[in-house]
Amino acid sequence: MLNIFNSCQKIKSLYTPKIIAEVNNEYIKLVKINGNKVPWHNHKNEDELFFIIEGSLLMEIENKPSFKMQKGDLFVVTKGLNHKVSSQKECTIMLIESKSTLHTGNVISKITKSIESQKK
Amino acid sequence: MLNIFNSCQKIKSLYTPKIIAEVNNEYIKLVKINGNKVPWHNHKNEDELFFIIEGSLLMEIENKPSFKMQKGDLFVVTKGLNHKVSSQKECTIMLIESKSTLHTGNVISKITKSIESQKK
Repeated sequence: MLNIFNSCQKIKSLYTPKIIAEVNNEYIKLVKINGNKVPWHNHKNEDELFFIIEGSLLMEIENKPSFKMQKGDLFVVTKGLNHKVSSQKECTIMLIESKSTLHTGNVISKITKSIESQKK
Repeated sequence: MLNIFNSCQKIKSLYTPKIIAEVNNEYIKLVKINGNKVPWHNHKNEDELFFIIEGSLLMEIENKPSFKMQKGDLFVVTKGLNHKVSSQKECTIMLIESKSTLHTGNVISKITKSIESQKK
């Protein structure tokens, strides 16, 4: 058993998803972001769930109005949708992603981390 | 987008999982329990994730020490394990379950709800 709030406190690096659990074919991850470094990307075959633990997140989806997510908000980016997330202050997010999901899709950027490094 | 805390407030019936989102092959559900009505059961082929939103939950797993889960605690009951959950006061839980998962396994009890009724 783990406590989400304790797990969040241990995360010191931004833009570095940390796998905290697995359930069936999905990983549960925690990630902190602060700024605008996540590139536009999509996951061709996988939905991705965002759940805000702390802070505020700007969610942008191609050809749709952007919106702000606050603590407790939950949104699923369905497969194939181009999306981008950013924040003006530190924001802590729980992600649910398929084990096969690359967190920045097929876009390799400065923040891209391998699944192996997300397990550490 | 939905807010978890708002969704929780709308749940009036105990032991009645409510599907609030889906991501890939999983449903995200909210459920409130208060007492001891969930029978021992297992999910032969599916893991089940418990995340405590509010309150305190007693988690019992066959042949293992039972333990109490508090707000923010997260635990995955892996496939095939007999388990039972109960609470002394109202407890609100987020569940992640495969779309194929029957919430009381193959045990039909007074609290058993169909997937269709969990979507309403």
